[in-house]
Amino acid sequence: MNQTLVIIAHPDVQNSGVQQFLMESSQNLGGVTNYILTEEAIDIKKEQARFKEYKRIIFQFPMYWYSSPFILKKWLDEVFQDTKTTALLRGKELGLVVSMGVSETSFEAGKSEGFTLSEIFRPFEAFAKKNQMTYLPIFSVSLFSYLTEYKKKELLINYQQYLTKVNNDSFKEKEAWFVKQLEKMTETSNEDLSGILNVLEDNRDELDDLMTLVHEMREE
Amino acid sequence: MNQTLVIIAHPDVQNSGVQQFLMESSQNLGGVTNYILTEEAIDIKKEQARFKEYKRIIFQFPMYWYSSPFILKKWLDEVFQDTKTTALLRGKELGLVVSMGVSETSFEAGKSEGFTLSEIFRPFEAFAKKNQMTYLPIFSVSLFSYLTEYKKKELLINYQQYLTKVNNDSFKEKEAWFVKQLEKMTETSNEDLSGILNVLEDNRDELDDLMTLVHEMREE
Repeated sequence: MNQTLVIIAHPDVQNSGVQQFLMESSQNLGGVTNYILTEEAIDIKKEQARFKEYKRIIFQFPMYWYSSPFILKKWLDEVFQDTKTTALLRGKELGLVVSMGVSETSFEAGKSEGFTLSEIFRPFEAFAKKNQMTYLPIFSVSLFSYLTEYKKKELLINYQQYLTKVNNDSFKEKEAWFVKQLEKMTETSNEDLSGILNVLEDNRDELDDLMTLVHEMREE
Repeated sequence: MNQTLVIIAHPDVQNSGVQQFLMESSQNLGGVTNYILTEEAIDIKKEQARFKEYKRIIFQFPMYWYSSPFILKKWLDEVFQDTKTTALLRGKELGLVVSMGVSETSFEAGKSEGFTLSEIFRPFEAFAKKNQMTYLPIFSVSLFSYLTEYKKKELLINYQQYLTKVNNDSFKEKEAWFVKQLEKMTETSNEDLSGILNVLEDNRDELDDLMTLVHEMREE
């Protein structure tokens, strides 16, 4: 089932390390569609029909001057210029995946940027509110090219969860998401993962360690 | 002397009642330059050189999805893509003139829009902060086509002040601005305005009434 539509706004996706990483991360998830915005003329009817089958809409972009690159705004201005468009989005979720060339801590009060990410992206929150969508917490990726391999693995798991997990921060939901991912892997792989499933069900405390384990098994 | 550069971002300035009104309002002020953004290719060097002679930069646009139309963002993304551009803007003032199809009170806490204009335009405030500019209070124009003639006269005076008055809300500054405007009119008109100047200097309390008088004399 289609679940999540990721709308990517970047002037050069092919040469963006972070965008390539994110697109690869979602490739085998199932239910996730990436859609890269271009400068070509927009077929408004076609774009408006695009959302129908998805529950979660993600705007994914690098932060340019405290907002998205203009191409996303152009697309929003054109596709949703009519106020009757609320029906297209009502009840869906809206998430932002924002990559940045500065540290997230720069956005704390008293730090160099001066405003929090929550404040800076209010226009998107207001867009979600106006269209009766549920606004998800912002998913930010700071200084991607400096991340260690371990941090990248963490990012991969967190990003996959952001795209497909039930919007609920409870530990139980996170666990359920892992169990589902493992079951999917059991179906499609020759490895016997039932042992892991048992452990997971028996011992919630060990989940954090398994995050790493899951990823390493995938790489084999 | 050049003083204020008004950068106008609107998809159809010619047919916008509010943009035409604002452009006419600034026509005889002196020191104000209107610059209408178009979708033509941007000559970055030329655009970067544009600011040099101005003290105050105004972004003037209708609010589309809680921000400017995309064309302003496109221009910002391209002209200021280099972080070395701060030198072009440092020490200048940045103001926003925003027209809206809803009432300003909709933006109060608990009202329909949910967020204040100050919050919604944080990205521009952050832009000003990053470039070491002074951010001016937002100048908003609500429901222009429903304004009475009297309200339009008020808007004209307030807008003229926003473009050229010293950034200081004191009564004395407002008065000084009026005296200067009147003096300018005395020089260029056949009417004897010295009586008005005397009244103004003698009696600050009557300034509000004079705002209307000034405008009516201009129309004669």
